[in-house]
Amino acid sequence: MKRKACAEVGIKSIDIDLPEEVPEAELIAKVHELNADPEVHGILVQLPLPKHINEEKVLTEISIDKDVDGFHPLNIGKLAMKGRDPLFLPCTPKGCIELLKRSGVIIKGKRAVVVGRSNIVGLPVSLLLLKADATVTVVHSRTPDPENIIREADIVIAAAGQAMMIKGSWLKPGAAVIDVGTNAVDDPSRKSGYRLVGDVDYQEGCKVAGCITPVPGGVGPMTVAMLLKNTLDGAKRVIGQ
Amino acid sequence: MKRKACAEVGIKSIDIDLPEEVPEAELIAKVHELNADPEVHGILVQLPLPKHINEEKVLTEISIDKDVDGFHPLNIGKLAMKGRDPLFLPCTPKGCIELLKRSGVIIKGKRAVVVGRSNIVGLPVSLLLLKADATVTVVHSRTPDPENIIREADIVIAAAGQAMMIKGSWLKPGAAVIDVGTNAVDDPSRKSGYRLVGDVDYQEGCKVAGCITPVPGGVGPMTVAMLLKNTLDGAKRVIGQ
Repeated sequence: MKRKACAEVGIKSIDIDLPEEVPEAELIAKVHELNADPEVHGILVQLPLPKHINEEKVLTEISIDKDVDGFHPLNIGKLAMKGRDPLFLPCTPKGCIELLKRSGVIIKGKRAVVVGRSNIVGLPVSLLLLKADATVTVVHSRTPDPENIIREADIVIAAAGQAMMIKGSWLKPGAAVIDVGTNAVDDPSRKSGYRLVGDVDYQEGCKVAGCITPVPGGVGPMTVAMLLKNTLDGAKRVIGQ
Repeated sequence: MKRKACAEVGIKSIDIDLPEEVPEAELIAKVHELNADPEVHGILVQLPLPKHINEEKVLTEISIDKDVDGFHPLNIGKLAMKGRDPLFLPCTPKGCIELLKRSGVIIKGKRAVVVGRSNIVGLPVSLLLLKADATVTVVHSRTPDPENIIREADIVIAAAGQAMMIKGSWLKPGAAVIDVGTNAVDDPSRKSGYRLVGDVDYQEGCKVAGCITPVPGGVGPMTVAMLLKNTLDGAKRVIGQ
């Protein structure tokens, strides 16, 4: 999907498929090689990595000028801090904000609830909403009463990875709902035997929410678009220097 | 206060007083000199800096191994991210958690509200509470109804810098309240003409809260203790290597 999108917009993408048993040092050497290559403006290490490889170590080796995924702790730190600007924003969180803005949803002064606190989505999107002046609550697996908190939200970002956990009755009427979840559930009526659903019960949710993203087809494509945008921005920065 | 505390515990502290008009490059050169000095285990640049100096640039120059204030964006990024450990935690946020733990306040599964979102206190303490499994809401100057949100909190961290903004009626009975605010208000009865108060109306608050820190005397001394602890930890790390 990412490869195809690159081809469509004219970004040259290079796949480097390493064997699953590749030594960590070899993977890091490859990252260094790409860091040094002036033809490369963005590096994406596809996660998850095999168990014998330290994910943190590898991601930290990506030059922050080419960290188009925005997962380098230096980028996350700058994303968190007031008055600091990261070179890249993580793609899915950036896409969530873009979806809200393009749909005319006001963020400033609103109650936002983020469900889930992953490094990839929940945490950074909560930081972005806070920077955009929402009053933000992060709900997670240790929250005893998620429904009562979610019901107060003008904006819900669902990123828990729990199939259809959020019911229609959990939503405030008119709320803007971004469903980041992509969960496979059994479906014998399909040839594949499963179908993809979000963290929100869409059939119920769309009756209550003011706007809601579907799964699949909502956040996914926007994430890819943000990755392309980050790569373009990275290239412009280098060329502009 | 910090100097005296160092002397008391046997940490050698060196004051470097530069003139207000010091060029930025000279201040940074001084930071580099301290970075390179193996006798130095912690560097603290006293804020705020004069207007002609870029605070971000100076703080980023401090070696993260000696960043005992914990304000380097790389440290903040690791503080924010699940599964990552910063070398140092910012002192006041670390002190808030220490105060809660030593007072027997359970954090996991509780509702915590942080009032204020500064880089120094509000933001990092909210991240620490989230890592400790609280359900965290950050309330700030753009929140239309802070009292309704604060009233739901089992734990309140007040770090808004607004003298006595939080009334007793804003608190949930039995809540644990950490008051980080230190605000000067006029007091003609004092020789100095002012006195220090917190962000919480203490007289009212102490009748409702389960526990509450006073201002002055609550968080301040704990912050200094955490700075000493960070410096000791930094030194141990170097000596252990």
